[in-house]
Parts: sequence; structure tokens; C-alpha cells
Amino acid sequence: MAANSLGTDVSGRMHIFKPLLIATSLLALHGRISAAEPASTFSKTDLRAAKTLHERASKDDTAYQLVQSLTTEVGARSAGSAGDKAAVAWGVREMQRLGFSNVRTMEVKVPNWVRGEASFKVLAPSPQSMPTLALGGSVGTPPEGIESDAVMVKDLAALSALPADAVRGRIVFFNNRMERTRDGSGYGAAVPVRTAGPALAGSLGAVGVVIRSVGTSTDRFPHTGTTRYTPDGPRIPAVAISNPDADALERQFASGKPVRLRITSSSRDLPQAQSANVIGEIPGTDRADEIVILGAHLDSWDPGVGAIDDGAGVAIIMGAVKLIRELPVKPRRTIRVVLFANEEFGTSGSQAYTAAAASESARHVLGFEADFGAGPVWRLSSRVNPAQQPIVDQVYRALAPLKLARGNNEARGGADLDGLAKLGMALLSPDLDGTNYFDVHHTANDTLAQVDPAALRQSVTAFAIGAWLGAQNPGDWQPVTTPKPPRR
Amino acid sequence: MAANSLGTDVSGRMHIFKPLLIATSLLALHGRISAAEPASTFSKTDLRAAKTLHERASKDDTAYQLVQSLTTEVGARSAGSAGDKAAVAWGVREMQRLGFSNVRTMEVKVPNWVRGEASFKVLAPSPQSMPTLALGGSVGTPPEGIESDAVMVKDLAALSALPADAVRGRIVFFNNRMERTRDGSGYGAAVPVRTAGPALAGSLGAVGVVIRSVGTSTDRFPHTGTTRYTPDGPRIPAVAISNPDADALERQFASGKPVRLRITSSSRDLPQAQSANVIGEIPGTDRADEIVILGAHLDSWDPGVGAIDDGAGVAIIMGAVKLIRELPVKPRRTIRVVLFANEEFGTSGSQAYTAAAASESARHVLGFEADFGAGPVWRLSSRVNPAQQPIVDQVYRALAPLKLARGNNEARGGADLDGLAKLGMALLSPDLDGTNYFDVHHTANDTLAQVDPAALRQSVTAFAIGAWLGAQNPGDWQPVTTPKPPRR
Repeated sequence: MAANSLGTDVSGRMHIFKPLLIATSLLALHGRISAAEPASTFSKTDLRAAKTLHERASKDDTAYQLVQSLTTEVGARSAGSAGDKAAVAWGVREMQRLGFSNVRTMEVKVPNWVRGEASFKVLAPSPQSMPTLALGGSVGTPPEGIESDAVMVKDLAALSALPADAVRGRIVFFNNRMERTRDGSGYGAAVPVRTAGPALAGSLGAVGVVIRSVGTSTDRFPHTGTTRYTPDGPRIPAVAISNPDADALERQFASGKPVRLRITSSSRDLPQAQSANVIGEIPGTDRADEIVILGAHLDSWDPGVGAIDDGAGVAIIMGAVKLIRELPVKPRRTIRVVLFANEEFGTSGSQAYTAAAASESARHVLGFEADFGAGPVWRLSSRVNPAQQPIVDQVYRALAPLKLARGNNEARGGADLDGLAKLGMALLSPDLDGTNYFDVHHTANDTLAQVDPAALRQSVTAFAIGAWLGAQNPGDWQPVTTPKPPRR
Repeated sequence: MAANSLGTDVSGRMHIFKPLLIATSLLALHGRISAAEPASTFSKTDLRAAKTLHERASKDDTAYQLVQSLTTEVGARSAGSAGDKAAVAWGVREMQRLGFSNVRTMEVKVPNWVRGEASFKVLAPSPQSMPTLALGGSVGTPPEGIESDAVMVKDLAALSALPADAVRGRIVFFNNRMERTRDGSGYGAAVPVRTAGPALAGSLGAVGVVIRSVGTSTDRFPHTGTTRYTPDGPRIPAVAISNPDADALERQFASGKPVRLRITSSSRDLPQAQSANVIGEIPGTDRADEIVILGAHLDSWDPGVGAIDDGAGVAIIMGAVKLIRELPVKPRRTIRVVLFANEEFGTSGSQAYTAAAASESARHVLGFEADFGAGPVWRLSSRVNPAQQPIVDQVYRALAPLKLARGNNEARGGADLDGLAKLGMALLSPDLDGTNYFDVHHTANDTLAQVDPAALRQSVTAFAIGAWLGAQNPGDWQPVTTPKPPRR
């Protein structure tokens, strides 16, 4: 997953999203079927199929094989890279191999930022070199780097509270610690330093930024992720260092002596590139015009191989839908898998998909997104029209063997379905346990070793049963009319 | 700690060790005092002082402050580097600050290998870049790197068993897994691939070597460490990749397609440099001519900041001796702390010290070495003359509150005291728990975050009580006459 601010047009050249048009279409569809019906119950056949899914999912390693294949044969696949293209080909090939129908790609324009090499040195008081990663989208430095005395602040508020000129000509060190949480709420609280810190520091005259990684590990992995400049503001280089190095740098500041830093980075933007969303389906039967969508993103950051972000998500939804396809019964609604392009660098894949949905009669009635690691699922949350709560309760009961917590009806969902959810699409959210997710997220350490096969199987089980019953809802998935809050 | 083969003269220009001369001196000393005496017991005063050490050590954070200071103010300090010189100055300053007597340095020649930058790419079948570290002492590559098809083997035996010409012109991938153990025995079994693999592969016509790291972590940290060429054999570049990357590379081999690799490295040797052992003491009283030596090494590998290898060892022995110095009673024997130069790159500091001991009347009767992480201590082992076993038993009883296991009398000790131990010096070994040590050892992740203050305090307690009672032995530390086995 990427940062929590969505819809930002990073390159200024992306596909324009037309929410009003789509909203109109969605409401038109929903209007047709949302007449008050009594809540009804799943058929015995549907519940028996859910049990079959549970039995088969506990023995099926398709998802693990998928994430292994993606990370081994493709590896890193940041937007616009050669790996990105290879990942699209991989997605098409694997969907076809698994027997999905209507497998196709949807072309998407993506930014093409190239990391290059970066270095970070403390020159004084105690010389040290620290591993670093440029923030995604950051400009580079001159070849000789930038060198300056530094100012340490906690966060955006602390920077804003400094006297005028306190940071002019300086490098700003943002030293904010992220809190470890199961639901990822610590990320939302910590990430603004990364997304907006360089823009703010630049506007105050700073020449560079280094941040304590937005991550929870005490291992020496810096975490990357996008930063966003303002269209007219200065663009200054920005890098991240790991938590233990941030601790060490904090101690250098604590010495009371001036802290002098040097940053080098050869990051740069190349011309926009072409990528694609990859789409495949199990066609529905009597309600085939309605779509239950399962989304994950195919791109990854470049330092790792994208196993937990988001190879695992790709694997969970493909593995789940593979199991549904193998059931002896066919779903009523169409179940669609979308592997979104470029979630990490501005969600242009999601934006293109949502825009295109307008011309597809806006048939998306329910969504599932897997973009929070490799599981296990610990809770079932939702964002549905209150009239559909009884159906969510029945889905929850069908998931009883997984012993999930029961979340509320305020699921925020992920980045790629945010656009559709804002238009009223219902969400069912088998919540993945994020306690350790931000130890690895956006680091070089995002490898297959971080994926536990048992947790992945359990997650597939939850998504498979959820998606199957979502497609069999004996009533209607009515639009959600309350305003959607920003996602996690 | 470095590899287990000792005494190798890496540079060919090191101080020559004269074991026979020293052995003669040691035996002369021991001969004077080793007449059969009945095993006697520690005085009440000595045992009360041991209790005082326990009480104070549990509240004293000197050791943690030392490892924090060393890693923050000096950081990486590989032999010959600027950090190495800074570490020597740090050692002198801190010993003086702690009130040690006769603080001095002993100059040591050290190799001066410079890592430069390295890269490792799988070109086919599935292109991937993997983080890598050159092995210490490895030659570099031409600027464009070396590129070749690759051969995967498990270890030295498997390589030797290949048909002639199987590796000529190829890059050899050693894919041996290290076993996790508490006592470090897994290291001894795995490390020959690193120390001798490149020399063997070169002799068979290989053009380069990549090894699965000699380490136990599933995190994406390659582990460095020395490799040793033979004087007349080919010198081919050698690098390490992390365990998860070795897993991924193994899967590429499993595809059955030819695996093509590229290695670049700018490693090179600079002219030999000057470093120093740092020495300080608590002078003894009635048996001041006898020395109880506590050793650790001041140098570190360069990718990390040397917190567990061996900042923690330095801190444990300095912290222990600081507590002994603050006792109301003075030790009978002289307690000497030696921070050895250049353990990692051929133990030239230890060799110089052992050689110099010849001219110092070879007064070293008992040794302690801390070079296996930050604790806790889990066992007390020894290597003493059997006549002194009752004293070891009494030391073990004095350590009862720490609930240690009782090891045998076949302690192998560490690298820096190996020379003296081979000459018959007794060893007392508060064994540090190495279960997780090789997750971090020789990686960039060797930072202060890996040091648990409570485990470090417990380790200081064990070393302090051991060293104190070792200095108060009411009998004699008689020489050990059985041949010393190779160390762990």
C-alpha cells in the first residue's frame, strides 16, 4: 500500500477521473434494484459451497506459489520499469493458466521515476555513513551532493512552529516515530512527514530533507515511499534512514554540537511510461451484470521484490477466485479480479479503472481489496448499506471457523478501490493483520521470506468465502450513501 | 568474531609469532608456583565482594553507555580505516575516564582492505538485482564487472566432486545453509565456504564466486567476513548474498534454464596501516605479577557499526572491570583489559600481543574473552588444569543467582586469546548465548538496536564475578597441558 492521500496527480499528466459521471451511472444501476426487500438468507447450496471453499483453501497452496512465482520470476516492478512490464505479462499468463475468463489488460499511463543511487553521511560531529533510500518522486542532488548543517524536528507541526529562517539553507531531519498497530492506524499518523515534509521544508528554504523511516522495524532498513511536491514550490532532495540510524542521528544532535550532513542522490524522472491493469473474471449467471470486484496491486517498490506489498495481495485474491472457479456451482454475480497498475506512485491504475467503469454501466456492487500484507485475517469489517448488515452477519457466521473479530461498518478500504467506494460501492473487508507489516513495507526486505504459507492460506480462505457469498447475496448490494472517510 | 581458522598471516607482512619462546616463559612461571597445593576456598571477603559485584552490576549501565558511545561516536571501524584510529583514541579515553591504570596502546600493523561498491545481478533466466557485500579481502572486478553462466554447488566437497572443467570460466554459487545453534557450532561448520571457497573455485578455473551468506537470518542482509586466497593461486572476486536472495537464486537454478550472473566490485587493498591494541589494568596486590586478562576486539566490519561484534564484548569487559575497580578491596592478581586491534582481518592485534607477552615474562595465568554478542550468559565453561576444577566449581556456585548451565572443561575460547591459550593459559568462559548472534554478525544490521540492556547487564555480572574470583584464586592457575583444540 502507498500513502493515505489519494487521487493526487503526481505527474500532472495522468488520466483525469470523472467522479460525477460515474456516480450518476452507479446510482442509476442501484436505483433499479434497491427497492426495499426483506433481508433473506443464503441457500443451503451456497453455504455448502462456502464449506467446500474452507476445506479446499486449507490444503491449497496456489497463493503461495503465485507470490513465489511473481517475486522470483519478476521481482521488483516499480511503475514504468522493465519489471512492471514483466509483471503485466505474468498477470495475464497466470490468470489464463488458472482458467479465468475474459482475461485482458487495460492500458494505463504511469510515472517513470528512477531511483539511481543515494548516500547519506553524517560529517560532524561524529562521521558516519548510513544506508539510505531516496523517497519516491524525490529530485536528485548535484553529483557532489548537498552538504549543510541540519535541524532536527519531530514533524510538520514542529517544523511550522520554528522561527522564520531557522531552516533556510539547512537540511531538515524529521525524527517522528511511527506507532505499531494491528490495523495500520500508526501509518496514517506518521506518513504526512514523508508525503508532505519535503514540500513544506522546501517552502521554508531548506535545501534537503532526511526522515526517520515511516516504519516500525529496528532493523537497518530504510523505508521508501512517495513524497509529493507542490506544483509551484521548491523541489528539494529527500531521503529516508532506518530507525536505528535515526536513533544514532538523534544522539548526535543530543551532543549539542552542530550536525553536518551530506546527501547524494541520482534520482530522476524519465518520460511517462505505459503500464496496464490486468483483469480476469468468473462470469456470473442470473445476475452477471453485477460485479463483485477483488483488487490488489501489481506494481511494487523497487528495493524489495514486493512479496508482502503487494504480491501477497495479488496471490490472495487470485488464489481465492481460483478456488471459487473450481466449485461445482457458478456464482450469480460476476466475480472480477483486477491487478491494478501503479498503486504506489499515485494510483493511476485505479483512476483509469474507475474512469473506465463509467462506460461499463458502473456495475460494481461490492469490493474486496488485499493490500496489507500476507495475513492472517483477524477481523471482518464492512462498509455496506445498513439494510445489508444482516447479510454481513451471515458472512461473518460462515467465517466462524476462522475465529475472526467482528469489525464495524466503517471499513475504509485500500487505495485502489477507494474511487469506487467513494461512489457508493459496498466493501467487505477481511482485515489482514498489520502488526508487523510496517517492519517490511517499502524496504529491501520485502521478500518471500516474509510470507508465512499458513497465514496466506487462512487469508485466502477468508477472501474466498467472503467473495463467494458476496456474489450470492440473495438480496441486493445497495449503494452506501454515507460520505466515505479517507482511507487508512 | 571472525572465522575459526587462526594465525593466518593475511598480508604476508605481519608480526611473526614465536610460540616456542613464549611457551618456555609461561612454563617457567607456572613451574615456580604449580607445586601441588590442596584446593582451597575463597575468603569470605572475596565472596562478599562477588555479591557486591552482583548487586551493583544489576544497576549499572556503564556497559550499555560504552557500546552506545562507541557505535555512535565512532561507528564502523574496520582495520586501517579512519574509524579504526578513532576507536583506538576512544578506547584510551574511556579507559582513562573509568580510572583504569597503566592505560596504553601497543602499535599493530593491520591490512587495509577497502570495500568500495559491489553489485550482484541475475541476468537470466529472470533478471533480478540483489543486495550484496564483497567478502573481506576479495579482489575487485574490472569496472564493467564479470559476467558468466553460473554453477550451483553446496560446499567445498561438492565443488571438488565436480568433473574437471565443470566450473572453468564460470561463476560458482555456494549454496550452503548455516545451522542456528546456541553455542555457535553452526558457524564452524558453515564458514569454510567463505574462507576457502573462492580460493578453491579459482584453482578450478572459476572466474568469480557468490556465496549464500554464512548467517542465520531470513532478513535481506548479506553477511561479509574474510576470505583467504592461497599465496600462489588465482584471486577471483567473491561476494555474498542474503539468505532470502540465495533462496530466490536457488529457485532460478531449479527452473533448469541456464543461470547467468554479473558481479561488479571495486574492492581493493591499500598499503598496510597502523592500528593499536588498547590496554588498561587494575594493578594486583600480593600476586600482581600474575595477569588475569579480559579480551575483546575493538575493530569491526564496515557495513554495520559493530554493536554486537564486538562493541558489546568491549563494553562487557570494560564494564566488568570498572565494577571490580570500584570494590572496596583490591584484587590479588593484576586484572588487565585488552581491546585487540584487527580481530576480523587476521588477528594481527592478538598476534602482536602474544608475541610481546614473551618479553613480559609471560605472566598471563587466566583469560576471559567476550566476542560473541551482547548476551545473556547462559553457561560457564572452562579450560583449566584439572587441579583447578574445584575453584571453577566455586566460581560456578558464586554465579548461582544467574542460573547458568555448567559447561565442560573443554572451552575453546575466542580468536584473540587463542594464542595464549595454546601456550597453556587457563580460560574461564561465561558463554554468551549465540542463538541469534549470526542473524546480525558481519551485516549492516549490527547496530545498537541489537543490544538488550538487561542481557548486557547480566553478562557484565557474570564476567565481573568470574574475573574477580579468578584474580582471587587462593591457589595457583596452573598451565593447561592438554593440546588446545581449534576454537569454535
